[in-house]
Amino acid sequence: MQALRDRLSRITDLNHAAAILEWDQETYMPEGAEESRARQVATLRSLSHELLVDDATLNLMESASPESPIDQDLIRITRKDVEKATRVPASLIAELAIASGRSKGAWQKARATNNFGIFAPHLEKIVDLTVQHAEALGYDQNPYDALLDQYEEGMTTAEVARVFLDLKSQVIPLVKKIADAPKLDDRAVHGAFPEDAQWAFGIEVAKQLGYDFHCGRQDLSAHPFSTAFSITDVRITTRVDPSFFSPGFFGTLHEAGHAMYEQGIDMALEGTPLADGTSLGMHESQSRLWENLIGRSKPFWSHYFPQAQALFPEVLGKETLESFYQSANTVAPSLIRVEADEVTYNLHIMLRFELEQEMIAGKISIKDLPNAWNDRMESWLGVRPSTDSDGVLQDIHWSLGAIGYFPTYALGNLMSTQLFDAAKRDIPNLDSLTASGQFADLLGWLRTHVHTHGRRKTASEILFDATGAPLSSASWMKYATKKFGDLYGF
Amino acid sequence: MQALRDRLSRITDLNHAAAILEWDQETYMPEGAEESRARQVATLRSLSHELLVDDATLNLMESASPESPIDQDLIRITRKDVEKATRVPASLIAELAIASGRSKGAWQKARATNNFGIFAPHLEKIVDLTVQHAEALGYDQNPYDALLDQYEEGMTTAEVARVFLDLKSQVIPLVKKIADAPKLDDRAVHGAFPEDAQWAFGIEVAKQLGYDFHCGRQDLSAHPFSTAFSITDVRITTRVDPSFFSPGFFGTLHEAGHAMYEQGIDMALEGTPLADGTSLGMHESQSRLWENLIGRSKPFWSHYFPQAQALFPEVLGKETLESFYQSANTVAPSLIRVEADEVTYNLHIMLRFELEQEMIAGKISIKDLPNAWNDRMESWLGVRPSTDSDGVLQDIHWSLGAIGYFPTYALGNLMSTQLFDAAKRDIPNLDSLTASGQFADLLGWLRTHVHTHGRRKTASEILFDATGAPLSSASWMKYATKKFGDLYGF
Repeated sequence: MQALRDRLSRITDLNHAAAILEWDQETYMPEGAEESRARQVATLRSLSHELLVDDATLNLMESASPESPIDQDLIRITRKDVEKATRVPASLIAELAIASGRSKGAWQKARATNNFGIFAPHLEKIVDLTVQHAEALGYDQNPYDALLDQYEEGMTTAEVARVFLDLKSQVIPLVKKIADAPKLDDRAVHGAFPEDAQWAFGIEVAKQLGYDFHCGRQDLSAHPFSTAFSITDVRITTRVDPSFFSPGFFGTLHEAGHAMYEQGIDMALEGTPLADGTSLGMHESQSRLWENLIGRSKPFWSHYFPQAQALFPEVLGKETLESFYQSANTVAPSLIRVEADEVTYNLHIMLRFELEQEMIAGKISIKDLPNAWNDRMESWLGVRPSTDSDGVLQDIHWSLGAIGYFPTYALGNLMSTQLFDAAKRDIPNLDSLTASGQFADLLGWLRTHVHTHGRRKTASEILFDATGAPLSSASWMKYATKKFGDLYGF
Repeated sequence: MQALRDRLSRITDLNHAAAILEWDQETYMPEGAEESRARQVATLRSLSHELLVDDATLNLMESASPESPIDQDLIRITRKDVEKATRVPASLIAELAIASGRSKGAWQKARATNNFGIFAPHLEKIVDLTVQHAEALGYDQNPYDALLDQYEEGMTTAEVARVFLDLKSQVIPLVKKIADAPKLDDRAVHGAFPEDAQWAFGIEVAKQLGYDFHCGRQDLSAHPFSTAFSITDVRITTRVDPSFFSPGFFGTLHEAGHAMYEQGIDMALEGTPLADGTSLGMHESQSRLWENLIGRSKPFWSHYFPQAQALFPEVLGKETLESFYQSANTVAPSLIRVEADEVTYNLHIMLRFELEQEMIAGKISIKDLPNAWNDRMESWLGVRPSTDSDGVLQDIHWSLGAIGYFPTYALGNLMSTQLFDAAKRDIPNLDSLTASGQFADLLGWLRTHVHTHGRRKTASEILFDATGAPLSSASWMKYATKKFGDLYGF
């Protein structure tokens, strides 16, 4: 058993070393190092893969005598990891890597010049290889199951489709209702927000939420992200816009939410492959919970608005708690997913989820994708992209071969409210705690019910055990209807 | 051959990944991560070692058909690396690691409490294991040869002893002469030197020397160092003292000198184990050349003093080029090696070199070390430590088991002047180029004669090919006698 633990610890160390190299690449690495860094990361990832699929790992698992429930989980989950890693032939993995390498450049060019034709043949190739990938991975009912399972283990296409259908049928009317209501003003989040003060305020609030900077830090990067190198080294990055408060501040809260998940994993799992978030959806539930359910709530700002006002007197001096709260929560159908508000965001995701399934099933040809995209945008959100750059070409994911990834964003939103409702049942004074800047009870609840388990429980298991119910859109719909009904007066 | 190249590239990537993790540890890593980081670095180093000594590497070397002179060197030098790595039994390496782990803590405590007795038994153990280490590594004449060879390949104890004896016999009288001369004032490097301006000035000058920030960067750390992750990613760190100009500025020049060496290695060696400085002495020659022979020279400051004056008007406003040049070059026998000036520095090294040899040969018992240290300090430098913390306990090296390392510092000084004299023969107007802030010719000369070779030539080969002579103390003595004779008026 100790030999198995040592081997898995090495594999984990290699993966974390690769993550450190990638973090450096996005934050401090000099430009000239791009090529060597790509090679170094690839070497670490390959070595980790080779150690995992090596017969020695299997033999150790066969002969190991687990000495604890953690050991049992280590063997059970590693067995799955090895199976997944060995099911796909190395030649197909290499083909996918080459295709996505080429495709990424083509996508960048296509988006820059608004020319879908440049990207189309690459996307066709990616879809073709992805179908082969799904076949190799294996599935019960739907090839898309295999793709989804890479990011959201155990979740099926049918289950996601059912929940999303339910969600869509209620979000579209909600968006229409909001569009028909008088618009809210968002002036209080635009204007002069000095970068240093934004930076310091974001860090201060993240600390108060419970993100431990003794085992973490924040740096600048072009695209914000969170990354973990161990339970005691979980970092976030952010960007700061000197004339727009929201991206920096809510971005910091979002990434801090991811980071607090990783920091809350049971230290007994440190250095093992179980010390990780259990799925992308569950990860996103933690980031969205802190960003939206806490960070964009009235109780939160009833505590923090006076501080924000003192820090940013030029813009906020003449604003009120109410006008600031409204500004941070305006809803407006728009073209770009990453700029979307809380309500319309899920529609952007469901659009991609539908198109992905149709592509994989061969029900839509690549050349028809731009129109299908634009039609659905118009019908669901009431806005139609005038260029493919603002439409089907906006996201990098498909160019990288990441098909099956998008749904996890919306799943995270749904899980976040479902967990939040359960936390509220256990902490009846949660709102007043939030209104006094006290988050220890909520974080403690999340630690106990979500974080501590690492990968020992799947997202569905965590959700069911914590809330007593399987995934559904009910909590989120109730939350959104109440919050935005109050804001927009219906 | 390609399979061998791939394998060596992986080994190199692992070592560079470990270096990135170590760099992060000294610059940005949150405190809480210490334990996990130590494990991760150890994993990468072990994997690299295992790949190197694996039979597969030997077999590839046996069967590979070199296609170029670089391939031939790759095989020749890797063969040596493998031999060295396999000669020492794993059990001894583990014993050394454990002993130095324990010894480091004891040394810290001993130094903090000025109690050599705490460290003595650990040092005894280290010396005992180091003797075994030398036996395992093998040598022709002197066990110390094997230790020295780890840091300065091909250099023998006899050769170093001969050169150092020569040096010592001339430096001691020089130091006495300086001590008898009227003291120089060093007021111009002390006072208010704002940190931001120091930081910016250091970077600006390093750029002008030729350190390429497209493939490098400078960060803050407690102990300045230079580190390379590839030929296109070579970084330095520095510290800045707001009331003392020298440590920050000359530290930056020193580390930039190391970094320019690594940046100048032939790109055909990128990703191979040959893309590294050839020895610690040769590395130090590059740092000391830029720090002292350029950075503390009159021509250099005739160009940069006006800029420094404009940046630091509070201290330098009333100073002259002459008073500043003197302040940057005062000589005063002192107790601490890392604070020593150009002239006395070599005596600190030779003291350690002699004591190390005596320890390894069993000619001195550990308990007599403090007195032997103090006696030699008094006789050579005219100062006697009043505490062991300022004497035998001042350096971390022995506690880490790094015996044989110290001589490379003085070897670097000697090589630097020897190379500089050769460069001056080839670039007759070198002083006037320096005086106009133009360093391209000198850097080009060093690139051609030193940097480009990486590990393909030993330090002795580089020195002989570049200067036409073997290592000697003559150049350095001539340089020091002239420079400090002029400064101190004899």
